[in-house]
Amino acid sequence: MTIFLNGRFVPEAEAVIPVNDRGFMYGDGLFETVRVVNGRPFRLAQHLERMTRGADFLKIKPPFAPKALQEFVEQLIEQNQMSEAILRVTLTRGPGARGYTPKAEGRPTMVMTLHVAPPSENPLHWSLITSSFRVLAADPLSSFKTLNKLTHVMARAEAAEQGADEALLINTNGEVAETASGNVFWVYDDKVCTTPTGRGVLPGITRAVVLEICQALRLLTNKRVVKPGALKNSEGLFITQSAFGIIPVATFDGEPVASSPLVDQIFNAYRELLVKS
Amino acid sequence: MTIFLNGRFVPEAEAVIPVNDRGFMYGDGLFETVRVVNGRPFRLAQHLERMTRGADFLKIKPPFAPKALQEFVEQLIEQNQMSEAILRVTLTRGPGARGYTPKAEGRPTMVMTLHVAPPSENPLHWSLITSSFRVLAADPLSSFKTLNKLTHVMARAEAAEQGADEALLINTNGEVAETASGNVFWVYDDKVCTTPTGRGVLPGITRAVVLEICQALRLLTNKRVVKPGALKNSEGLFITQSAFGIIPVATFDGEPVASSPLVDQIFNAYRELLVKS
Repeated sequence: MTIFLNGRFVPEAEAVIPVNDRGFMYGDGLFETVRVVNGRPFRLAQHLERMTRGADFLKIKPPFAPKALQEFVEQLIEQNQMSEAILRVTLTRGPGARGYTPKAEGRPTMVMTLHVAPPSENPLHWSLITSSFRVLAADPLSSFKTLNKLTHVMARAEAAEQGADEALLINTNGEVAETASGNVFWVYDDKVCTTPTGRGVLPGITRAVVLEICQALRLLTNKRVVKPGALKNSEGLFITQSAFGIIPVATFDGEPVASSPLVDQIFNAYRELLVKS
Repeated sequence: MTIFLNGRFVPEAEAVIPVNDRGFMYGDGLFETVRVVNGRPFRLAQHLERMTRGADFLKIKPPFAPKALQEFVEQLIEQNQMSEAILRVTLTRGPGARGYTPKAEGRPTMVMTLHVAPPSENPLHWSLITSSFRVLAADPLSSFKTLNKLTHVMARAEAAEQGADEALLINTNGEVAETASGNVFWVYDDKVCTTPTGRGVLPGITRAVVLEICQALRLLTNKRVVKPGALKNSEGLFITQSAFGIIPVATFDGEPVASSPLVDQIFNAYRELLVKS
């Protein structure tokens, strides 16, 4: 496996970072997860745009422009001959001093790795539980995909312990926020609903694609703040994330979830976009 | 500089971790910061105990027992000939797969580094501001010193932008929680007050030492939940953390803070403990 590390392509064994990298010390950085289909990274520009916004907020100066990164991604895919993959892009503040205050002395670290892709043919069905972990309702950092993901790791571990696939995260207002790995959508009254961003909800790239699809298919959408109980009455529930795309939820807190033909319609439209992109 | 990395002592240039270390990918780990005085790590046992509790919660199996680590710390101090230093101990879930769910496949990573110590002779005085970032009031993770410190990094950056030294973090209930780098104490009505733990407040080792000191000096203490406004009426305000010890606050949100003789008394008692330990 060849890995992109700070402008060079290196074998896996050489893809190492110093222990004083602030990404390692404090989670002081960002990442993106991108689906690669037929050798093409799906919606890479949007992912890099989100990363750029995050870097701007964290005051990390990305060492490469999005255009240059896009070319590096192409080379990475070619060198690894992985036309079906998951791409991870990581940007950190780079090596730095101990102590929280960022001193901007080091060169930011940029890593890109490819990972085996999940099959995209048939819809997975996930069992979803409600996590006991909470996310902040009013946190400017939740607009960005930061390296501080321990809550999400623990929520996923909690799901796994209960034999479930995914965990729903509630925010500090008691409202539905997101899942450990993605955004949540549900069908209610023939409308495709999701949570608004900015309440502990990451503005997902796949979430945005689904909203586009709904517009193209002339499906009504609704961004709604709801309590978790509202999801129990949904006519269909699904999760969106970049690695797996659209994942219908089969059970929520142990109860079967209704299946809506709208979910299948969106699933198929997404798959089409993914393949022809 | 010699660094401890997974059981070996290596030169700085070889102190590297693979890019798939879950500490780097998700902040999936813990750390401790310990003051080394006269060649002895102050309250190392308590720091390692807190780390062990955290590892237990995260289900990370530390690769070395506290006793073995204590010996490694002695060797690290000796090899670097740094009898005055800050020791950082980092424990992560180790190399692992992409995706939040911890799969426990890798060997946890353990790193120990020494850093130049701040002078401990005279009290520093810090200017404190109230951060716009919030911490979760009810977060089991806040009981542990995890690698998810971006909120604390950003709060410190916010303080630096305003020309201040430190930032006070308020929890989602609007209550005083902690500062970016430590716990907060204040004197009111001749009592030494601090926030109770478990409301977004890390149970600081230096906080515990100060509570011991108060008991020894027969000073009355009070663990109180307060709004930030209450600190404006304090008769003395100080921060406790392992690197700098006791730091009196000179100004809070731009206003001068009263100075209490109790703060000097605690400062001196702490310094004595530190030196004779």
